[in-house]
Amino acid sequence: MTSRTQLLNSEAATRVDAMLARYRARITEGLQDALDSAGVEHVRLMRAHLGIDGSRAADGFGGKLLRPSLCLLCCEAVGGDASRALPGAVALELTHNFTLIHDDIEDNSPTRHGRPTLWRRTGIPQAINAGDGMFVLAERTLLCMSDAGLEPQRVLEAARVLNDACVRLCEGQYADIGFETRATVSLQEYEAMIGGKTAALLGASAAIGAIAGGADGGTVAALGEGGWLLGLAFQVQDDVLGIWGEAAVTGKPVAEDIRSRKKSFPVVYALDHLAAARARELVRIYESPAIDDAAVDAVLDLLDQAGARDASTERAERWAREAVEALASLDLEPARRDEIEALAAFFVHRSA
Amino acid sequence: MTSRTQLLNSEAATRVDAMLARYRARITEGLQDALDSAGVEHVRLMRAHLGIDGSRAADGFGGKLLRPSLCLLCCEAVGGDASRALPGAVALELTHNFTLIHDDIEDNSPTRHGRPTLWRRTGIPQAINAGDGMFVLAERTLLCMSDAGLEPQRVLEAARVLNDACVRLCEGQYADIGFETRATVSLQEYEAMIGGKTAALLGASAAIGAIAGGADGGTVAALGEGGWLLGLAFQVQDDVLGIWGEAAVTGKPVAEDIRSRKKSFPVVYALDHLAAARARELVRIYESPAIDDAAVDAVLDLLDQAGARDASTERAERWAREAVEALASLDLEPARRDEIEALAAFFVHRSA
Repeated sequence: MTSRTQLLNSEAATRVDAMLARYRARITEGLQDALDSAGVEHVRLMRAHLGIDGSRAADGFGGKLLRPSLCLLCCEAVGGDASRALPGAVALELTHNFTLIHDDIEDNSPTRHGRPTLWRRTGIPQAINAGDGMFVLAERTLLCMSDAGLEPQRVLEAARVLNDACVRLCEGQYADIGFETRATVSLQEYEAMIGGKTAALLGASAAIGAIAGGADGGTVAALGEGGWLLGLAFQVQDDVLGIWGEAAVTGKPVAEDIRSRKKSFPVVYALDHLAAARARELVRIYESPAIDDAAVDAVLDLLDQAGARDASTERAERWAREAVEALASLDLEPARRDEIEALAAFFVHRSA
Repeated sequence: MTSRTQLLNSEAATRVDAMLARYRARITEGLQDALDSAGVEHVRLMRAHLGIDGSRAADGFGGKLLRPSLCLLCCEAVGGDASRALPGAVALELTHNFTLIHDDIEDNSPTRHGRPTLWRRTGIPQAINAGDGMFVLAERTLLCMSDAGLEPQRVLEAARVLNDACVRLCEGQYADIGFETRATVSLQEYEAMIGGKTAALLGASAAIGAIAGGADGGTVAALGEGGWLLGLAFQVQDDVLGIWGEAAVTGKPVAEDIRSRKKSFPVVYALDHLAAARARELVRIYESPAIDDAAVDAVLDLLDQAGARDASTERAERWAREAVEALASLDLEPARRDEIEALAAFFVHRSA
């Protein structure tokens, strides 16, 4: 028997799928246009990272396109025309992927979605440069909102929002790299890190959609805040899947985040809530030279003792609820509000 | 006895020094403001690269500030108020330094201006991220031209010029990295590479200054073209100094570019102009596992036989002349035009 929660979650997933499908062709077309517009040879490396060749088949693009879809969704939610937000949406996906290219180098990650990462294929120098090139393309594409009929003042506002988010994003990445060489990280430090590294760009996605849709300053700020809270929820669920996700669904090895010693939410929570001796044991395993299967099991056991999995899900649920509440007083298109709420539920309960 | 050319060159250098000194305090102040505005901890790494600490002493900043100075100079040359161009000027210097941080990783360079490069101090991951953060800050700072009183439409135009230049810059860097693994490079390929890697940002510096100064489209384009040609001249003279520069003046080891197998203009010229057997000898030395002092001398001898040094200087002089000609028909402030012309002479005849 399926519970009412499961039914609701499956309904949310269906709605989110339909929403993503509605925007997918437009976004991938916009991505192809942006890549074509560069007129440079090394776009080939950007395409290699994105998993698309020169053909214009929308199916070729592997990503979920969450950020650009949230952008278009928020544009329509405030009564705007999504075509005005499209260059901004494409810029957000390019920005996200620029960070992935550089993150893969910084984290020494050999694969992403089962394929070799760009730096493994081209070497570090060309991969750094391809990431730079992709971010430049993102910045340039966002400015094309002006060609899509948006007033210059609003385009500038959108560009500021993107760059403010990227300042926070880089600061979050700086903290995350720093965490690797530290024995422990506090929950507060962890939340500040994901607030930058993950949530800032989702907040910007919602805000840029609202700006393109012609929303007033208060609505832009509220949607930005809502998107940011959704981003926090998204990341904590990502952390849950990085430990307890099914490999067949996530496409990642089981407990990968433990093997790579990631100080993700469940681990940080456990360090904060375990008795001192057990917390020390967790630190000891994380600092040991190799984490074998027995060590993974020991960590999983310590996380169980701390109730870290439930606590993570509860934290994600709380942020998702706060995201929905942040939008409560806004005058949004009802169908689009439903989809934002479905996205909030999906972010917390997704299995991949 | 000093020749008339030497006198002219020393006069040009004096004028350029005075011009750079006139803008220096404003630019370094703007840089400090931009870094302070980020409100992020890893700005510390950006400061470390720039060689400035938290104090606001303008002297602390080691760079020549050519790009931002050219930007302010061109703004005043078209009769504009340099304060409107200042955020753009600062953005250009930040962009230049972002590329240096990443180039030093990509080229595996241990030192810059006698100090360890950022990646040697912080590791590659934090250095990649600090470079990213600096470019984001550049983009954000450029948008502040709007706060400095420039109309939104012109700010957008300046942002487009910056990003178009950065697309070319990344493509130039892609080509330059690719050159390392190739036996030979044609003069045409070399010129396309420096047209992106070096000249694009100098062209953007001149164009952004003109945009901020209120110039019409034709004037902006002509100054952009002039700045781009100056950039080509600048790079070829840089290549000359990288081989024949005096270590005490340039701060680099003698013939450093030969030791690091750089396919710079003199080498590419020699490959194109030497008899086949001698060109093969040059290729053979460049492909040998180690380049010792005897090999450096052999390369210097081959470059002499090709007349590569004079050819390089002549090429730089031709581009500098074309730069001055590109501005001939423009209605520029006479004193500022003189300074642009002095800059052209200085770029070709500088010794550091």
